Amino acid sequence: MVENSLEPSDNQSSLATSQTCALSGSQQDRVELQTLDPNITHQDWIGRDANVVWHGFTQMHHYKDNNPVIASRGAGRYIFDVDGNKYLDAISSLWVVTLGHALSELNKALFDQANRISHATMLGNGCDTTVRLAELLSELVPVNDPKFLFASDGASAVEQALKIAFQYWKNIDIEGHDKFIALKGAYHGDTVGAMSVSDSGFYGDTFNPLKFETIFCEDLYEMADYIRDCPDGLAGAIVEPLVQAASGIQLNDSLGLLSLSSACNQMSIPLIVDEIATGFGRTGSLFASQEAGIRPDIMCLGKAMTGGYLPMSATVVSARIANSFLGPDLSKRTLFHGHTFGGNALAAAVAIEHLKLFDSYNVLANVKERSIQLHDALETIARQRPVVKEVRTKGLFAGIELNCDEFGDPLLARKVCAKSIEYGVILRSIGSTVTTVPILTSSQDEIDRIAWTIGDAIDQIVNQG
Amino acid sequence: MVENSLEPSDNQSSLATSQTCALSGSQQDRVELQTLDPNITHQDWIGRDANVVWHGFTQMHHYKDNNPVIASRGAGRYIFDVDGNKYLDAISSLWVVTLGHALSELNKALFDQANRISHATMLGNGCDTTVRLAELLSELVPVNDPKFLFASDGASAVEQALKIAFQYWKNIDIEGHDKFIALKGAYHGDTVGAMSVSDSGFYGDTFNPLKFETIFCEDLYEMADYIRDCPDGLAGAIVEPLVQAASGIQLNDSLGLLSLSSACNQMSIPLIVDEIATGFGRTGSLFASQEAGIRPDIMCLGKAMTGGYLPMSATVVSARIANSFLGPDLSKRTLFHGHTFGGNALAAAVAIEHLKLFDSYNVLANVKERSIQLHDALETIARQRPVVKEVRTKGLFAGIELNCDEFGDPLLARKVCAKSIEYGVILRSIGSTVTTVPILTSSQDEIDRIAWTIGDAIDQIVNQG
Repeated sequence: MVENSLEPSDNQSSLATSQTCALSGSQQDRVELQTLDPNITHQDWIGRDANVVWHGFTQMHHYKDNNPVIASRGAGRYIFDVDGNKYLDAISSLWVVTLGHALSELNKALFDQANRISHATMLGNGCDTTVRLAELLSELVPVNDPKFLFASDGASAVEQALKIAFQYWKNIDIEGHDKFIALKGAYHGDTVGAMSVSDSGFYGDTFNPLKFETIFCEDLYEMADYIRDCPDGLAGAIVEPLVQAASGIQLNDSLGLLSLSSACNQMSIPLIVDEIATGFGRTGSLFASQEAGIRPDIMCLGKAMTGGYLPMSATVVSARIANSFLGPDLSKRTLFHGHTFGGNALAAAVAIEHLKLFDSYNVLANVKERSIQLHDALETIARQRPVVKEVRTKGLFAGIELNCDEFGDPLLARKVCAKSIEYGVILRSIGSTVTTVPILTSSQDEIDRIAWTIGDAIDQIVNQG
Repeated sequence: MVENSLEPSDNQSSLATSQTCALSGSQQDRVELQTLDPNITHQDWIGRDANVVWHGFTQMHHYKDNNPVIASRGAGRYIFDVDGNKYLDAISSLWVVTLGHALSELNKALFDQANRISHATMLGNGCDTTVRLAELLSELVPVNDPKFLFASDGASAVEQALKIAFQYWKNIDIEGHDKFIALKGAYHGDTVGAMSVSDSGFYGDTFNPLKFETIFCEDLYEMADYIRDCPDGLAGAIVEPLVQAASGIQLNDSLGLLSLSSACNQMSIPLIVDEIATGFGRTGSLFASQEAGIRPDIMCLGKAMTGGYLPMSATVVSARIANSFLGPDLSKRTLFHGHTFGGNALAAAVAIEHLKLFDSYNVLANVKERSIQLHDALETIARQRPVVKEVRTKGLFAGIELNCDEFGDPLLARKVCAKSIEYGVILRSIGSTVTTVPILTSSQDEIDRIAWTIGDAIDQIVNQG
């Protein structure tokens, strides 16, 4: 049953809650109650929502059937709907929230910046806050002498990476390097360029006439071999390091990444590492590339960059590549590409404070402990249930793949996630896989609760079926 | 000379300043002074910036030469650099700021929302603030029974529009509608799909191997004729209504747009109107489509949606098109596309308050008065100076094209804009065109100042040459 309660949770004595007053919640709960209109229920809001909002990756004809939560407030790891029902956010609001919702420290950084300036364009001009963020990140990213080209959507950062790798070859006057090489199951975003280097899950082949051709390999070693054997046509290689999250939490490993990186270095093919999902601690390191021991030429950042507050993405480019773009003003060597809100001052201010808190909360240590716990708990659940085909975890990414075919229901994972809402836990299905991507400050109790909710929801659905 | 002053400007008795305390500024100036480090000058910041930030559409080798402004604070129509130098923002921080910088009302909306929740995912779930924004916009946009698919970058909204038009034909089982038709000089963004329907200014042909093929027409009437003659291969038509801003403020007219719209309606070809630059009052109407008297199937919004505070874009889709996407859950008819931060709660809250203020400030009336004044003032400047080839204005968009070829300097417009910084006015060049896109609440004095600054800066550069 959903906890219909605005009382602070028992779990709030855990990690992050002890470190930030925003999570104690009781005062906010009262504020929230005052703003709720008792005449408009959560069910009403779902109807109003479906009438005007088109939700991404969502079949709107069945939107209402999958128990959507219309969020009205957040506090720490919890989301409240308009009726005051409370849910554990076990997907980090789609892999973006790191420390928690409505944190007083991030709010303060936001407010201070808004009182100065909210946005100043990066097109030909700059902003001190954005410079400070880039300087701070330049000490942290595993990219040599990095330059930061900011955007807002993650897909835009990928598009920038592709265009930079592509134009790099033109800048150094070498012809023919026009194709990218990518991994089977890859997901790099939904814009035409990003989609072209993504594998065609979810009927992506619908858009084949719009996409450019990409070489897809079965694994990282095949990618490395291809690069060594046929480097001449390649503009670049692109990979999600350690975890291909959007394809249902598929894993790859450090050795494979080292092999790929070594082949790229050897053949001077730019390596683009897409850390949009993996960056900022999700896998247990600040960046997955660091765990793998690689230093890419180009890195894409997004999602958790602002701790889950605001859209911000960045393409991080090594000086070796970036310097090829230097030339006469307005000349062909210039990158004629720019997103209006790239480097937004509000997002930059929150991102700076987020990096500071990330250290002071000692987030990586918690991710390491909780990820072992989550893995073990899900393995236990899987062993007891033949309907579970496989459990895949890395850091605080977890996928529980179900035997949908054997069970005769392609919507099985979908139904498990809809059921979990009745237990007050927000999960997300990707195809036949139930996924949980907990907030990085999650407590031991919360991880346990996520695991048993998945188990109980599976049992409920399987027994109904 | 730059006004090195943190005193409130004399101009601050004008329109918006009388309506919001945030613009009076003197208290903020004191706050600002406390945060400035006298040991780090504006010139130092330019160097730090160039070391780590890659600026869009900017040749970084010459970044420092073009007098960049590193913004540290804003107030109303003014930006202050880190040394306290004050500049009139005559480009609306790249066409996004409508009412002014650091407005107390927009800040309050931002703070209230942050205290509730900053972001809740739209992928399968929702957020009450985002629903309220979509409901509010649905009363204003000239699209029938509109559905709002949110993203953050404008280019993403265009990509969504293209993919929706493309998939629409698959959904209704009609083959062969795979190509788009667009206008010469079009600019719809820099991602591969958006770039494919944009004309190849700024060496866009560098990326031809990545782009899909598009049909480009000389004018709107040729587009209409083509659609009537050869509709069978067309997935959709895309156009910037009234103003093609990024190609140097090129104008088109209502009659042409009506002709295009009529052809699209007649042949059932989806019409995509890209109002990312023109939307929210810039041309004198809330949306340019309204002045033209057209109701597109799909509309792209962005830039000024949050009054210039935060990245937010949207693809607005008529029910006729959106309903073709309804079907079984997880079926091929679903739009498998979504941007993580689409519908961000903070951006939505600011966008709602922005729409309210837009009314209460009576912004459109000011745009109409100021646009006549700006046009007349620039015409006067042009008449006196043979180096000016043409003046093009629509609403508060203005382009002053210079005879660069005749003058023998392709960087002429660039130099005029760099010179204008010394007069404390931020302009922007696009190729051979000097552009000004003033904040919509600009006063009579400020518009005069922009015009004479352009005139004086031209004289300085031409006399030097």
